[in-house]
Amino acid sequence: MIRPDVPNPAVRRLTLYLRQLEQLLAEGGDRVSSTQLAQSLHITAAQVRKDLAYFGAFGRPGVGYRTAPLIEALRRILGTDKPHNVIVVGIGYLGRALLRYRGFKRKGFNFVAAFDIAPGKVGRSAAGVQVHHLRELPRIARRHAVELAVLAVPPEAAQEVADLLCDAGIRGILNFAPATLTTPEDVAVDPVDLAGHLEQLTYLLGPST
Amino acid sequence: MIRPDVPNPAVRRLTLYLRQLEQLLAEGGDRVSSTQLAQSLHITAAQVRKDLAYFGAFGRPGVGYRTAPLIEALRRILGTDKPHNVIVVGIGYLGRALLRYRGFKRKGFNFVAAFDIAPGKVGRSAAGVQVHHLRELPRIARRHAVELAVLAVPPEAAQEVADLLCDAGIRGILNFAPATLTTPEDVAVDPVDLAGHLEQLTYLLGPST
Repeated sequence: MIRPDVPNPAVRRLTLYLRQLEQLLAEGGDRVSSTQLAQSLHITAAQVRKDLAYFGAFGRPGVGYRTAPLIEALRRILGTDKPHNVIVVGIGYLGRALLRYRGFKRKGFNFVAAFDIAPGKVGRSAAGVQVHHLRELPRIARRHAVELAVLAVPPEAAQEVADLLCDAGIRGILNFAPATLTTPEDVAVDPVDLAGHLEQLTYLLGPST
Repeated sequence: MIRPDVPNPAVRRLTLYLRQLEQLLAEGGDRVSSTQLAQSLHITAAQVRKDLAYFGAFGRPGVGYRTAPLIEALRRILGTDKPHNVIVVGIGYLGRALLRYRGFKRKGFNFVAAFDIAPGKVGRSAAGVQVHHLRELPRIARRHAVELAVLAVPPEAAQEVADLLCDAGIRGILNFAPATLTTPEDVAVDPVDLAGHLEQLTYLLGPST
């Protein structure tokens, strides 16, 4: 399903369409037009149709898309039609919040283990997930065939932990640490730049007083 | 500075350039090329030059950009050359984590107040920030001239709180709730879709076993 010619922003929009479609379906909407999908994202209906056309022929002109089958197709494309085992490294406030974040489980992401180095955290559990010492990571990650890791450590530790994750066979890192990571070609990093999100908003506020 | 013709992804990339430049400056790098800036984002140097050219003539061919002045210019463009007062609504684990997130303060975002409705939370403080009852929000938001709000409430409460924020003069909402918000034209919403970030990563993993 991977199409190397599909630009990153299009993949990001697929996740946004999926979110809208799921909400729509929950409200009983069994059909949706590209115009509807486009509206709340402030993009054009043509963009929606183009994004979806990368992956197949969905919907029909004048009729639109059927909600449930499109959700199914998007999940298949994104790879979330199957559950994924995920680990969290760094059990500070953010790590704990992420372990409890309801949106993950709903999408089939299962936290199978958490990691830290603080004696007061290792050996306990957080949000029902066992916290292990970081040195156990390679063994546990392999045992659960974990491919995805959420990184919520302080920025100064981020690269070192990322190296450990790569060595342990992790192929995707969701990075919450405000630090740029260097990883091998075959390990994807998605930086969640929380401050960057606020910067985008201040841009939209315009020159203020 | 607002340029309506600048696409959203370009603004997002400005924040990513800024993050790289700040790290580079901290490491003593006083010059940078568009190729360097492009590399870790997996985009072309031409894209970097195009993004920056929307806002002025920075850098020189063969010489590159001077780090510190480019940081200053990007902050001015993004509106983070001045501090901004921010409120957080929803003091669960995520709200608390966000109040403590070091990246915000570093960028000039000051949390001036927090809001919840739970009797056990209202009247206390979280990460040194006072937690008020939600009904106090309009008064306090206006007193501190708050324009930015971080929304970390359960999804089922998100729209109701968003309406309250809009009425209170908030112009930008960073939405962590897994729910799509409807707001007036002049209120910007930036949805932080945490599960969506993981979905993008699973897409990059490709069809697995």
